Amino acid sequence: MDIRDQHPDLAAWNALIERSLADPDSEPIENLGPDADEAVYDAVFVGGGAGGRFGAAYLRAMGGRPLILDAWPFLGGSCPHQACVPHHLFSEAAAELDRMRWFSDELWFPKFDPSRASIKEIVDLFLAGRGSAHAFMNWQTKEQLDVEYVLNARATVVDRTTVRAAGHTFRTRNLVLGIGARPVTPDVPGIGRHGVYDFVTLVEELDFEPTRCVVVGGSKVAMEYGSFFHATGCDTTIVSRSEVMRSSSLEHVDDDLRRYVVDGMRTRGMELLEGADLVAIEGTGDGPVTGVTVRLASGEQRTIAADMVFLGLGERPDTAALQETLGIEVGPTGRVRTNLRMQTGVPGVYAIGDLIGGPMEMWKARKSGVTAARNIMGEDLEFDYSRYPDFLHTTYEVSWVGLTEAEARAACDEVIIIQMPPYVEGLDTEHLPLPCAEGTMLYAFRRPELSGFQKLVVDGTTRKVLGAHHCGYGAKDAFQYLDHLIHRPEGLTIDELGWMNELFLNPEHFVQLSRLRAGKGRLTHL
Amino acid sequence: MDIRDQHPDLAAWNALIERSLADPDSEPIENLGPDADEAVYDAVFVGGGAGGRFGAAYLRAMGGRPLILDAWPFLGGSCPHQACVPHHLFSEAAAELDRMRWFSDELWFPKFDPSRASIKEIVDLFLAGRGSAHAFMNWQTKEQLDVEYVLNARATVVDRTTVRAAGHTFRTRNLVLGIGARPVTPDVPGIGRHGVYDFVTLVEELDFEPTRCVVVGGSKVAMEYGSFFHATGCDTTIVSRSEVMRSSSLEHVDDDLRRYVVDGMRTRGMELLEGADLVAIEGTGDGPVTGVTVRLASGEQRTIAADMVFLGLGERPDTAALQETLGIEVGPTGRVRTNLRMQTGVPGVYAIGDLIGGPMEMWKARKSGVTAARNIMGEDLEFDYSRYPDFLHTTYEVSWVGLTEAEARAACDEVIIIQMPPYVEGLDTEHLPLPCAEGTMLYAFRRPELSGFQKLVVDGTTRKVLGAHHCGYGAKDAFQYLDHLIHRPEGLTIDELGWMNELFLNPEHFVQLSRLRAGKGRLTHL
Repeated sequence: MDIRDQHPDLAAWNALIERSLADPDSEPIENLGPDADEAVYDAVFVGGGAGGRFGAAYLRAMGGRPLILDAWPFLGGSCPHQACVPHHLFSEAAAELDRMRWFSDELWFPKFDPSRASIKEIVDLFLAGRGSAHAFMNWQTKEQLDVEYVLNARATVVDRTTVRAAGHTFRTRNLVLGIGARPVTPDVPGIGRHGVYDFVTLVEELDFEPTRCVVVGGSKVAMEYGSFFHATGCDTTIVSRSEVMRSSSLEHVDDDLRRYVVDGMRTRGMELLEGADLVAIEGTGDGPVTGVTVRLASGEQRTIAADMVFLGLGERPDTAALQETLGIEVGPTGRVRTNLRMQTGVPGVYAIGDLIGGPMEMWKARKSGVTAARNIMGEDLEFDYSRYPDFLHTTYEVSWVGLTEAEARAACDEVIIIQMPPYVEGLDTEHLPLPCAEGTMLYAFRRPELSGFQKLVVDGTTRKVLGAHHCGYGAKDAFQYLDHLIHRPEGLTIDELGWMNELFLNPEHFVQLSRLRAGKGRLTHL
Repeated sequence: MDIRDQHPDLAAWNALIERSLADPDSEPIENLGPDADEAVYDAVFVGGGAGGRFGAAYLRAMGGRPLILDAWPFLGGSCPHQACVPHHLFSEAAAELDRMRWFSDELWFPKFDPSRASIKEIVDLFLAGRGSAHAFMNWQTKEQLDVEYVLNARATVVDRTTVRAAGHTFRTRNLVLGIGARPVTPDVPGIGRHGVYDFVTLVEELDFEPTRCVVVGGSKVAMEYGSFFHATGCDTTIVSRSEVMRSSSLEHVDDDLRRYVVDGMRTRGMELLEGADLVAIEGTGDGPVTGVTVRLASGEQRTIAADMVFLGLGERPDTAALQETLGIEVGPTGRVRTNLRMQTGVPGVYAIGDLIGGPMEMWKARKSGVTAARNIMGEDLEFDYSRYPDFLHTTYEVSWVGLTEAEARAACDEVIIIQMPPYVEGLDTEHLPLPCAEGTMLYAFRRPELSGFQKLVVDGTTRKVLGAHHCGYGAKDAFQYLDHLIHRPEGLTIDELGWMNELFLNPEHFVQLSRLRAGKGRLTHL
């Protein structure tokens, strides 16, 4: 289907995408220049997810000619279809459900009725609306970004300058691989039972209302989906081999922040089994999940009743075909090896996004695509993605950037902590409605212990902010800019921070707390 | 009462403050050094609100000796007692009530029962908890900030080096005046009737449950409290002499942002009468409010039934006594004139906070106090408070910084707009769930038109960000840092912004939207 000279509006795009998804025999969607079969593209992006779409857009903006190929009938990849977008909807639902529980039958809140909260219904809410984001990205990429693409067609990489898709053979100077990764499935008995999901199959296949869930894993996805399930009233146990929030991707989570978050999950009735291994998923015959057997830290086994198992064990790319065709180098976890220009060892072949391993985050996917594009267009640009801000959701937003207190103490002579509740011994912080912060005002006035936690880690010698850590609501967005300020060459001193213009009551109080200490020649804790 | 050698914990402070507030004859609370009566302080801060407390803390941190005097038995001033803190609690309640209305009887939300939502009950929630913030500030200022103070005692300025309070005569090298401002009360018939409130008297005196409200004014306080009242189910009409959100303090509100906000208020059933003058507050005899008579823009008069009138007409300082004693110069609206060092014309006398006029915001109050302190301690520091980020609440957070689109067009050859929904003609934006942003995910999937608005204004020539404008949730905190980045001497280019690490789904999409355009040599709208 050639839509080059058509200009579908958003509703038309939405309908076309839905039709294509529903029919496995639906035809490719082609937005190609008339000379596509003769042209030599500057880059063919195999995969139109976050990295491919942003990379192609940037290359086009620079005056190059990119082509995106994707098997799905929409651009944007897994994020709007199965990953970040549903996760955010579910986490927002979790925060709201949590609030409505804590305030059940108080103020204007009615008595909370857990029978009304349905995982299935919220998943269906997502499914009914996800086409809108897809439609917008197809529309924007064509009409605003002027990028050619072929969708709903599986691409076959022939060699490093040739790709086939939808009956076309495309020639290109460069190949940018961005085919993403898939959730890991462990090899344990019962893994194939009905009722076992990961974040992909949850939205695609959930067909009943779970009442009791075991989440396997202790990293972001496990914390986020587990908190959501539990908030709906589906009692949830997290089974994690290591301590939760301690995986390598969460190494910069401060101990006190982690404690606040994990304590909060337990306060809400979640069970967290740390140091526990998944042994088997139980059921009768080929029947659905009835429980999960785990080996506890003590060595003893325990079977936990459950009708849903959710796997949050990370993701791996599937690179076998690319390895064979292109001879690119792949690491032990399946990730494609690249340099900081996103170049594989094969000239003209780049890899981006989740395909190159962690952090499997949107900013890295997009900026790795842009890095490939800029290098292809002649810039000499390296993208160091080893330092970054990060977040996860429980029923809170949990955000962090830079060093933890422990990391700072290992690196600096003198570390100053500025935090809420204050960094002093013996203060009755449990009944202290601090932080009294935007986003947790209702909690501050009725459930003080739920009003969050915030910590700033400062080098007492250089006065530079080394790290910031937050649990609450409404501060996450600011961590993008704090990351920039902390990691720029000159850094961010407590004096500069304390001279900014706070928008009080800020969700985090870093500006004004810094100001209360900035006058001191020798800094002290607050 | 001398508490110098006592160290009351937060509960003890809370009890002492409550006792003091309840008893007009309660004794002063003294946290003074043993030599207070002989000492010459570096500065006496008359008023321990935001400006006085931060100024004194900074001066102490620099090694100086400050003293704070306040008539209230707590530090922090009007903010935690009557202004920002209750406003934030009320605005959070408004946002939550709004969400529960829109989702009434959908998903897990029960049918919304407006009879449960009570202004009085939410005010009482605030009153029951406000002592905690007071207790914390008294505790912190003594135990962590090491500042002397006398509370619960009215200070009398004798001359510019002498102040009396609580039977002491304090001598000082400098005097820092920070006695704040009070809401303006218009001189119209019926103004004294029961049922007329401003933000101070609302929390102190509300003694019934209003059902129909007229808010007088069109600036922040009017918008914020009006939105709260209406969200509780108290039908609200806003009566504003000019267009709402058009007062001089809101001059940097972008037209499109304003339209989104005002349309949203009307969509929620609020009545906004613009160009209307308050004529009289109606009632029978000396009885309570029964209505408000206004003169409409057309010239005709109309009486609106109401049992509550809320005045949001700005604030003015009361400076008569200070003028007489000290001879300081005062402007036509009662504001004390100072230079950018916060110096009045009288040597050694400084004025800070709301006393010096607008913007009557926390950052200005605190930083003006710090500016006075730093100049007193020998620094030569000017504080330019003419450019700043700003916000208001309706049932949303509305944030802005820098230039509006119109201001930018007046100032620059080429202005580029990057926004959500996109800056194009003819797109069906009403049914477009964009921004699909953190904080408005439930809206994006069920009430697309309520999912917010965001706009970035860019100089097409220099590529610098000139302004940012947002309506939604969770972005306000970031505007503190955007303000810093935009207003630093080198500014913030779209290229730098587009290379930051977004935390997707961010509440505002400025980072990634900038990245979609940053590759272009000649920028275009998005």
